[in-house]
Amino acid sequence: MTMVRGDIEEGRALCLDFGKLGKAAACGQDLVPVAAQDVETGEVLILAYANREAFEYAVEHGVAAFWSTSRNELWVKGATSGDVLDLVEIRVNCEQNSLLYRVRLRGKGACHTRDARGLPRRGCFYRRIEEGVLGFEERDPCFR
Amino acid sequence: MTMVRGDIEEGRALCLDFGKLGKAAACGQDLVPVAAQDVETGEVLILAYANREAFEYAVEHGVAAFWSTSRNELWVKGATSGDVLDLVEIRVNCEQNSLLYRVRLRGKGACHTRDARGLPRRGCFYRRIEEGVLGFEERDPCFR
Repeated sequence: MTMVRGDIEEGRALCLDFGKLGKAAACGQDLVPVAAQDVETGEVLILAYANREAFEYAVEHGVAAFWSTSRNELWVKGATSGDVLDLVEIRVNCEQNSLLYRVRLRGKGACHTRDARGLPRRGCFYRRIEEGVLGFEERDPCFR
Repeated sequence: MTMVRGDIEEGRALCLDFGKLGKAAACGQDLVPVAAQDVETGEVLILAYANREAFEYAVEHGVAAFWSTSRNELWVKGATSGDVLDLVEIRVNCEQNSLLYRVRLRGKGACHTRDARGLPRRGCFYRRIEEGVLGFEERDPCFR
């Protein structure tokens, strides 16, 4: 069965893409993984990647910036949608090989998908695994 | 200047290892990035990786399991230290290419490093970037 984007993003079937890291690494950039977390709610919004250029852009401009491994270009979150994530701080892990962007949402959401009301979802992790399928958690975006 | 492990983990010098993703991918496993988040505090504890084996172990046993890309083996968090992370739920992102483990700490901490009191740190993101160097945030492990 071929899954199309709508199924992957809005479906209840679990079809994890374990090929992701290999594809990300194949873009030819030196990268670290980055989690973006909403400082207001604690919600983990996005898991993405940064190279030195994206990291330095984030530090300089005070907004969450990543490296798009699919388009292989700098990805300043919200540059087109307006849903910018303002950086409150950047945390570094023990081994200095991953980052945590602690952010405030300037717009309505950080995810490119939309919920049942047609609004941008606040974060990307709106589904949980329930007995092997995916359940939606639209009402509790804060995960608390 | 060569940084040793103590400098990397306990120092104030920023020396991000942007080679991480390439090294992780080179272990030969199909992987997705995984963030582990404390459900009690909202703290992002760890950013790591999982292959299908680690993911299935986590689902089956109800504990956070990763794939150690440096040792190239299954890494059940806390298996030796006792600092197990009990899984409350697993979240999946929109594109189904990253995971969020929502966990409860069974032990004292999730990080292998120790704070000034000699106790395991709760999470790995205990330093923030401050004017190009790293500042410690031992007193506010919850990030709130």
